[in-house]
Amino acid sequence: LLKVALVGFGTVGQSVARILCTRTSAGLALTHIANRRVERKRVDWVPADVVWTDDFERVVSSDADVVVELIGGVDPAAGWIRRALEAGKSVVTANKQVIAQCGDGLLALAGERRRHLLFEAAVAGGIPAIRGLREGLAGDRLVRVEGVLNGTCNYILTRMADAQVSFSAGLAEAQKLGYAEADPSADLDGADARAKLAILSLVGLRRRIDVEAVPLASIRAIDPIDFAYARRLGCTIRQVARAELLADERRVLAFVRPALVPLSSNLARIEGNQNVVVVEGAFGGEASFSGAGAGGGPTAVSVVSDLEAIARAGADGHAGWPAAPAADGVEREFEAPHYARFIVADRPGIIASVAEVFSRHGVNVDAVLQEPGWSKAELPFVVTLERCSSAVVNEALAEIGSFDFHVRRPVWVPILASEGGRS
Amino acid sequence: LLKVALVGFGTVGQSVARILCTRTSAGLALTHIANRRVERKRVDWVPADVVWTDDFERVVSSDADVVVELIGGVDPAAGWIRRALEAGKSVVTANKQVIAQCGDGLLALAGERRRHLLFEAAVAGGIPAIRGLREGLAGDRLVRVEGVLNGTCNYILTRMADAQVSFSAGLAEAQKLGYAEADPSADLDGADARAKLAILSLVGLRRRIDVEAVPLASIRAIDPIDFAYARRLGCTIRQVARAELLADERRVLAFVRPALVPLSSNLARIEGNQNVVVVEGAFGGEASFSGAGAGGGPTAVSVVSDLEAIARAGADGHAGWPAAPAADGVEREFEAPHYARFIVADRPGIIASVAEVFSRHGVNVDAVLQEPGWSKAELPFVVTLERCSSAVVNEALAEIGSFDFHVRRPVWVPILASEGGRS
Repeated sequence: LLKVALVGFGTVGQSVARILCTRTSAGLALTHIANRRVERKRVDWVPADVVWTDDFERVVSSDADVVVELIGGVDPAAGWIRRALEAGKSVVTANKQVIAQCGDGLLALAGERRRHLLFEAAVAGGIPAIRGLREGLAGDRLVRVEGVLNGTCNYILTRMADAQVSFSAGLAEAQKLGYAEADPSADLDGADARAKLAILSLVGLRRRIDVEAVPLASIRAIDPIDFAYARRLGCTIRQVARAELLADERRVLAFVRPALVPLSSNLARIEGNQNVVVVEGAFGGEASFSGAGAGGGPTAVSVVSDLEAIARAGADGHAGWPAAPAADGVEREFEAPHYARFIVADRPGIIASVAEVFSRHGVNVDAVLQEPGWSKAELPFVVTLERCSSAVVNEALAEIGSFDFHVRRPVWVPILASEGGRS
Repeated sequence: LLKVALVGFGTVGQSVARILCTRTSAGLALTHIANRRVERKRVDWVPADVVWTDDFERVVSSDADVVVELIGGVDPAAGWIRRALEAGKSVVTANKQVIAQCGDGLLALAGERRRHLLFEAAVAGGIPAIRGLREGLAGDRLVRVEGVLNGTCNYILTRMADAQVSFSAGLAEAQKLGYAEADPSADLDGADARAKLAILSLVGLRRRIDVEAVPLASIRAIDPIDFAYARRLGCTIRQVARAELLADERRVLAFVRPALVPLSSNLARIEGNQNVVVVEGAFGGEASFSGAGAGGGPTAVSVVSDLEAIARAGADGHAGWPAAPAADGVEREFEAPHYARFIVADRPGIIASVAEVFSRHGVNVDAVLQEPGWSKAELPFVVTLERCSSAVVNEALAEIGSFDFHVRRPVWVPILASEGGRS
C-alpha cells in the first residue's frame, strides 16, 4: 500500500482526495493533508486517520511514500520537492513552472535517490500527454510536438470566432467563468503555454530548452475581423505552442504565438477551453491527444494516474528518465506563409506602398483580401505572403508600420499548414 | 539488452525491423526473423547475425526474450503465442482477433509465468490507446469507450460526405488505395471494429465481453443522400464502436454500427482512414486519442513501444494485467433519438402511414425532412424520432418496411449526441 501525502488542498487537491477516498481499486492510501491554516480546510469525507497539518516538515518526517505537491509557483514548491526527494520520498506534482525551470536538477536528484518524480498534470490537465509521449510513443522518434496548451486563450479565440465578440469581451467572459485569472497576462501573452512547451520538448523531443529563450507573441492583437479573413483562407486562429527538432538534431525551433491553422487540422478542431497535444514521429506520423486542459477533476485524474504508476512500479521499480541533453539553443525564426492585417484610413496608393515594402524585402505577396462593407475611415484589408522567414516579415512590418495611414497597428501571424503531417 | 524475435515479416514486421535497426536509443536487439518460405523475404539491411528461419520451433527454443507475433488470424497464431509464453518468453502482438477471442486465457497464462503479453498495435494502429486507457487514465474510472476503429469504413464514409461518391465507388477507391481487402466484409459489416471494441472494453472498462454478443450493423446501407440530411441536422455519419458500463456496473452496452454524430464531436472530426478512441471517465470527463489506424510505420511504432515497455520493466518487472471480470452479458438495445430514411414512389398519404406506425409504437416523430428537387418516382425523405429504444424503432421499421411504396429498403441509424460528454 502506497502512502500518499497531499501538500496543497485547493481545487485539485480536494479532487485528488475525492478519488483516493471513493475508488475501490487502488493500492493507494491517503495518509496526510498539508495546507496553510489547515483547520479551515477540514472535510468530513476523508478517513479519520488522515493526519491534517500546516507544517510541511511533518510531511517530510512522516512515513509517507509519495508527496503530492499542489501548491503551485516556484517558491517554496521547488525547495519542498527537493526536500521530499532527499528524504527518500517519490514526488508527484502538477507544477509546470517548477518542472520547466528546475526540472532538470530535480529529475537528476530523483534518479540519484532512485525515486519517482512524475508530472503528468503539469501539461494539458487531464490529457495523458506526458505518458503518451514518453511511453505510448516510445517506439517512435518524435520530431515535432505542438499544441493548444492554454484553455483561457482557446476559450477567448473560439468565442471571437463563433460569436464575433471582441477580444476584451471574450476575456471578460472567460474571467466570469473562472477560466482566466484576474491578471491574465501569463495566459494571453504565452508564458503559461511556454512552460508546458518546455516540458513537452524535454519529454517528447528529449531536448532541454531554456524556457526564457522561447519567443512569445500575445493573442491580444487578434480581432474578430481576423476570423472572417481566416475563414476565407480555410483557417481559424489558435494560440499555438510548437517545438520542432531541427535537421541537425541539436537545435530546437520553438515559439508560442497566435497562428492561422487549417480548419481541418488537429489544432483547429479543439474548441472552448479544451487542450490538444499533437506530435509528429519520424516513423509513425501524426498522433494527437485531446481533452480537458484544466479543472479539478481532470487534473486530479492525471495526479492519481501518476500515483498508480508508482504503485505499479513497486518500491524498487524506479524508472529513471532518459537523459535529455540541452538543445544547442532555441531557433526563434521560421519559414512559413504569413497573414498580415491592416486597418487604415483609406486613400489611393496604400496597397502599392505596402506591396513595395514587401517587394524590397524579397517577400512575394500571394493575395490581397478585402471584405466589403467597411467604412473608408477604418478599412481593414489583409495581405497573404508566400513562404518566407518570420524575421523578414517582422522587418517589413516594422517599416510598413511607420506609414501614417494606419488606424490600428498592423498585425501578422504565420499560416501553419503542416509539411507532411495533418496539423 | 532485450533479444527480439520477429514472427511474420510482412509490411508491419519489416517496419518493426526498420525501427529496431535504425534507431540508436533502444536496449532492444533483433535476433530472429521467422516467416514461411523465409528465403524470399531476406533483406540486406538487417545485421548479419540475425537468424532467418521458417521454423517457429526454432524461435521457441532460441534465447530470444520476446516474441513479436505478426502473422495475424487466430490459428496458428494463438497456439504460437501460448507456446512462446510457456517457453518463458514475453509476447508482443498486433493480433486483434487472438486478443478479442482468447485474450483472457493468454493473459492469465502470461500472469502465471510472470511474462508480458502486450498488444498496443491490436487496436487503432499507431495510436497509443491501450496504454492511454490502462496507464494514462489509470487514475480515473472509465464508464464509456468508443471510437472510429475501422479506417476502411471511415475512408468510404468521408468520401461519400465530401465528394458525394456512391458507397460502391467509395469502396472501389478504398480497395484501389489498399485500404480495403478484396473481401471487405469484416470492415464494412463491423466484425473488425468489434474485435477492437472487445479489447477496449477489457482494458478501459475492465470488463470482458463476449465478442460474438456485440450486435453489428453494416455501413453498406448508407447512401450519399444521408450525408445531406445529416448535415441539415448538424451531423455526419460514422461507423461507431461503443461500449458503455451500465449503471449496475455489471452489464455492458455495446454495438458497432453506423450512426449520426454531431459535426463538432470527436468522432466526426476524424477524416479519411484515421482512427479515434474517445473515453469518458467518471472523474475526468472526456479525453480522446487520434492518429493513423493502420499502416506499417504507425503499427510498428506501437509494437516497438510495447518492446520498450518490456525493456523498461526489466527481466522481473512483470506488470500483470488487473483482473477483468466477465460482464454479466452485453446489452444490445439502447435509447437515443433516431434518424430514419425512406426512398419511396411518391403518392398521397405516405407520411401519414409512416407516422401512424411510429405513433402506434409509442414513438414521437420529431421532424420530417425532405430535400427539394427529387423525382417523385424515387423520392427520399427523412423522419427524425425523439429519444426512444432501438428495439422499438426496429419493430416499427419492420412494420413500415412491409408497405408497398418503398423503392429501397428503409434505413435507420441512431443520433449519438452524448449525454454529459462532447461526443
